[in-house]
Amino acid sequence: MIPGKYLLFLGDVDQRLDAKTACGLADWAPDRCVGQWRLPTCGVDLGLPDMDFRTAIEAGARTMVIGITPFGGAIAPAWVGPIAAALRAGLNVASGMHVRLEAIPEIAAAAQASGAELFNVRVPGANYGVGTGRKRSGRRMLMVGTDCAVGKKYSALAIARDMNSAGMAATFRATGQTGILIAGAGVPIDAIVSDFVAGAAEALSPDNDADHWDVIEGQGSLFHPAYAAVALGLLHGSQPDAIILCHAAGRSHVDGYPDFPLPGIAECIETNLRLAARTNPDVRCAGISINTAALPPEERESHLASLSAEFSLPCFDPLTTGAHALVADLERRMLATDA
Amino acid sequence: MIPGKYLLFLGDVDQRLDAKTACGLADWAPDRCVGQWRLPTCGVDLGLPDMDFRTAIEAGARTMVIGITPFGGAIAPAWVGPIAAALRAGLNVASGMHVRLEAIPEIAAAAQASGAELFNVRVPGANYGVGTGRKRSGRRMLMVGTDCAVGKKYSALAIARDMNSAGMAATFRATGQTGILIAGAGVPIDAIVSDFVAGAAEALSPDNDADHWDVIEGQGSLFHPAYAAVALGLLHGSQPDAIILCHAAGRSHVDGYPDFPLPGIAECIETNLRLAARTNPDVRCAGISINTAALPPEERESHLASLSAEFSLPCFDPLTTGAHALVADLERRMLATDA
Repeated sequence: MIPGKYLLFLGDVDQRLDAKTACGLADWAPDRCVGQWRLPTCGVDLGLPDMDFRTAIEAGARTMVIGITPFGGAIAPAWVGPIAAALRAGLNVASGMHVRLEAIPEIAAAAQASGAELFNVRVPGANYGVGTGRKRSGRRMLMVGTDCAVGKKYSALAIARDMNSAGMAATFRATGQTGILIAGAGVPIDAIVSDFVAGAAEALSPDNDADHWDVIEGQGSLFHPAYAAVALGLLHGSQPDAIILCHAAGRSHVDGYPDFPLPGIAECIETNLRLAARTNPDVRCAGISINTAALPPEERESHLASLSAEFSLPCFDPLTTGAHALVADLERRMLATDA
Repeated sequence: MIPGKYLLFLGDVDQRLDAKTACGLADWAPDRCVGQWRLPTCGVDLGLPDMDFRTAIEAGARTMVIGITPFGGAIAPAWVGPIAAALRAGLNVASGMHVRLEAIPEIAAAAQASGAELFNVRVPGANYGVGTGRKRSGRRMLMVGTDCAVGKKYSALAIARDMNSAGMAATFRATGQTGILIAGAGVPIDAIVSDFVAGAAEALSPDNDADHWDVIEGQGSLFHPAYAAVALGLLHGSQPDAIILCHAAGRSHVDGYPDFPLPGIAECIETNLRLAARTNPDVRCAGISINTAALPPEERESHLASLSAEFSLPCFDPLTTGAHALVADLERRMLATDA
């Protein structure tokens, strides 16, 4: 477990999309974030109090989280000085980069000097076995997507929150660095050696009470030219009883791959169900989650309503509507099954 | 590149199935194997001259290959002494285990003392990028399977050999430890971090002449509860123009997973084609490869003939018939296209 509270380090980042980890923590764990530390050229504002590491320690911070998620996952030279200064002052540092913090000599030396801890949340902490395919007790819901970065993490967080609000037993299960920092635990599934991806996904959602839901953050997409392997290993190992199809309204192509049009929602649901049935023949699609940020506000409600009618499924936007419609539908179905 | 010739170390192994690497080298690279070294309790015989490391060095061996492939990929305590002795005498040692040879202190010390080299062919030698999905020049044929251990490696080796015999330009591309030792190069695809599997598969079969075939060893199966992620990443990154469906006659369930019946051949072909089309819309199934070892010899020919008629595809057993039927069918199709 990573000691809270957190100071969110934004460095010199320019756009919110490149600060996904910081945005996720500010949105989903605001009570654990004491402030943001921005270098002079930083163009992003999370709306948290601005402070450096000294003020953060006085405000109760125990760990500085590198909130930036650059393409490639490397630590920029401009961040090394501030990170080392925070460490020397005794703040732990947590990173979601592929590269380990201790691989940078100045950072390793600063941590050793003060005894502060380095947390590499994207470096798997355990050795996982190969998947067994054994059916586990309890219920599981997995987010699947038409693409990366369509709202799978926000969907899972909203569903777990709204299940808990409705009195259902539910746990958010993180599979990426931001989710792991929000939940305090999880498996960085895209950093697992491919032979062990399904096994790691099995370990992430172990046996549980019969009426407990694990709500599992998805990764990648079966239709992604680079990341489909991760998506399929997670799908098989999660053995979901229910999948939630996640999509960003207005997205027509795989982000960063202009030659790859996105699949339709119906095709994406069907392909996921077909492959998921290999480890759970009873899998069904329980709902559709749409990130409507790209739509004009006055069109969002009707877009969700029309998809809901087309697929006869609850359809929601985790940020604007929450997942109440999905949770209510689940409760109706469970009552119908009990009756 | 690993220096030949090879001495094949069989240790105390009991069954041919646990000596897959040694069997593969003896079958497909016999001119590079000077002999086999068996400890007193060893129950496997490859038909090679028996010798220890001293005799092997005199016979021209440069590298001792650990020919054993135990479940879990660990090095047994009984092998450490003989491996260290071979190293001290100056033989290099090559291993296909997940664990690195130098992780065992006695082995590391012996290599350092003599200057002999340690080769860990299952540990990726390069850092691969994420997949790009970019179409590459040249032709690619990928083995896909109903299961693991159905003959994908032997099929690819037989096809590349028979293409070459027919005057076609073709290269076997290895994706597992035994194939890498046979070919002298390749990518241990199941040891790649899952985010980079498709990218590593792209690197394995780079741009080539328009009429050149890369014949790519498959791994896992889309229907395997543990290894489907590897299979899908390899399928997407290979961008095959043609797939060959590989199956072991008589196999009804996933090897080691009695709760998982194998898919039918038609279903397996259809699912592979459907997912492969994401990165190569022109993919087709070019043939069926059957390991007929479990059938009575008098039934093998009719079994292949009946499958060939059912699917209108060339159908062969890499060990008993070779891949001539497939290669002849490819040539007919190419002539028809040119006409």
